[in-house]
Amino acid sequence: MSNATIDDSEVDIVIAAINPDLKSFLNEWRPIISQFHLIIVKDPDMKQELQIPEGFNADVFTKADITRKVGSSTSIVFSGYSCRYFGYLVSRKKYIISIDDDCTPARDSNGDLVDVVAQHIANLKTPATPFFFNTLYDPFRKGADFVRGYPFSLRSGVTCGLSCGLWLNLADLDAPTQALKPEQRNSRYVDAVMTVPVRALLPVSGVNIAFDREVVGPALFPALRLAGEGKFRWETMEDIWCGMCVKVVCDHLGLGVKTGMPYVWRKDRGDAVQSLKKEWEGVKLMEEVVPFFQSVRLPRSAVTAEDCVVSMAKTVKEELGKVDPMFARASDAMAEWVKLWKSVGSSSSEA
Amino acid sequence: MSNATIDDSEVDIVIAAINPDLKSFLNEWRPIISQFHLIIVKDPDMKQELQIPEGFNADVFTKADITRKVGSSTSIVFSGYSCRYFGYLVSRKKYIISIDDDCTPARDSNGDLVDVVAQHIANLKTPATPFFFNTLYDPFRKGADFVRGYPFSLRSGVTCGLSCGLWLNLADLDAPTQALKPEQRNSRYVDAVMTVPVRALLPVSGVNIAFDREVVGPALFPALRLAGEGKFRWETMEDIWCGMCVKVVCDHLGLGVKTGMPYVWRKDRGDAVQSLKKEWEGVKLMEEVVPFFQSVRLPRSAVTAEDCVVSMAKTVKEELGKVDPMFARASDAMAEWVKLWKSVGSSSSEA
Repeated sequence: MSNATIDDSEVDIVIAAINPDLKSFLNEWRPIISQFHLIIVKDPDMKQELQIPEGFNADVFTKADITRKVGSSTSIVFSGYSCRYFGYLVSRKKYIISIDDDCTPARDSNGDLVDVVAQHIANLKTPATPFFFNTLYDPFRKGADFVRGYPFSLRSGVTCGLSCGLWLNLADLDAPTQALKPEQRNSRYVDAVMTVPVRALLPVSGVNIAFDREVVGPALFPALRLAGEGKFRWETMEDIWCGMCVKVVCDHLGLGVKTGMPYVWRKDRGDAVQSLKKEWEGVKLMEEVVPFFQSVRLPRSAVTAEDCVVSMAKTVKEELGKVDPMFARASDAMAEWVKLWKSVGSSSSEA
Repeated sequence: MSNATIDDSEVDIVIAAINPDLKSFLNEWRPIISQFHLIIVKDPDMKQELQIPEGFNADVFTKADITRKVGSSTSIVFSGYSCRYFGYLVSRKKYIISIDDDCTPARDSNGDLVDVVAQHIANLKTPATPFFFNTLYDPFRKGADFVRGYPFSLRSGVTCGLSCGLWLNLADLDAPTQALKPEQRNSRYVDAVMTVPVRALLPVSGVNIAFDREVVGPALFPALRLAGEGKFRWETMEDIWCGMCVKVVCDHLGLGVKTGMPYVWRKDRGDAVQSLKKEWEGVKLMEEVVPFFQSVRLPRSAVTAEDCVVSMAKTVKEELGKVDPMFARASDAMAEWVKLWKSVGSSSSEA
């Protein structure tokens, strides 16, 4: 990990509370996150009272807060995993880190606790190198560097917008894969961070991510909602869709996306076989979505993340809207999100 | 590592003998490579007698063999590290593995000897996935898979053409970097293999590579020769140039390039500060070369590696030939290489 120093006041930890009891979750994370400000957003579909242990600097947002801020006429749905996006909207910090509430801290190959905050912030604060692949991975890590043949003109790198972490134990597989291999668990700790090259798409998982809210915040939104969306990750596509959007935006704006570390330990949850029926919908959609994102190009006039999202929303409607009404709704949600970001998001009297 | 079985008769190990005494080198590699056929090519600039220990099935090629096969009127120079390419030319095997003679077997994180042959062949025999990035790295490794959101239509992957291994201890850095950080050694064993995405360029190092000779062999050639080329890796660019060519060819033909494991242990050798004067030439050239390879496109009519190289040689001459006569010579060497590959390479009465 790099030596990037972390200013507590620059970081918000956003937790989507899908389950009411956050006690053991927060207690396990206490050594790593207790010094930071927490934004906890309660799934508006959940009726039970949230249980939050003492000793955290946390702001909790509920359905009432969401309705008050956003209104009810919106095309954006903040339920399930998508409630976290409300936290992104009301944050005023430069960096956001978001971890699913079924994850606990992982340990590295030496048995040491992984500090997700330190690693994500190091990823975001050191440059990304999307324009040429470095075979020794992140050249800015201690002990690493650019290898022979790496162009010197590209060694200063670019700003990193998004940092994607990984998962030990239960990997973020889709329901069919998990159902086919019910015993499979990820036990390989890969000690590497790398920049995903420009124009290469990846499936961004929302389980464990961080981003620079000031530069890419407007491009992280709840847009694609499956008809049968559920409360397990493999029953959703919101993060995958959003991840392709944000990668295209980063590519267009000359920003980087990193993947690899930090790891979290992901607990077993849900029955993949039961989820299969819902999941196939998302699986089929990808076959339309990927070629679209591989070919979409943003206009030169789009110079901010907001511009890019507005432009992309338009293209989504034009090119995918006729394929499935879900895409037309995603387009509406993206356009709406930028409006919200500018009104709610830029107002300074928050939380 | 995957369970790919290795047929000894499919593999040639090609060694460029830059130093006359191969005894300790081959003895250290004995447990891993002794069951395979070796092609040892003696640097034609080297006067001393080669020393090869007993117990290897090796064919040795010298300057006289090179002249006899290739003639003396060629634009290709097989001296220094480039002598290995003569081994690629005369091989009749499907897979070639080539390791520099200053490397010894590495040990993995568990202290076990790394079997470079098994890992390279596993990389080459399992599919590559250049069209979408898998965050859990090579999905075909034991315990790994495609993650949620990875399009099912892309999961069968494509043939892997090239496998690039890495280096522990002395990494393959350029002379300026090594001179600036004389104490730096690479001690990070990253337990991952990945496909480099389509259209992403990488600096391919010739220190530790393997390839499928039948599909990409014609695209691995000694073409770019620095005026001050020396006998240390950081005084050469032949592999970097060739690596960009072969990546463009793989992208065009829909083949994959993998990087990561296996590792070799690279011994300290040479004085980086002394090499600096020569190295800057190569460093400067990269600034011309990279934009060229990032933008070069091959015609649809190019459907084999030979076609691609002929076409690329032409474009190199047109676009880079006027920048530096070195590029015009590289173009000539590429065109000549394809002719050689068709005459020498395809004759069946070899070695």
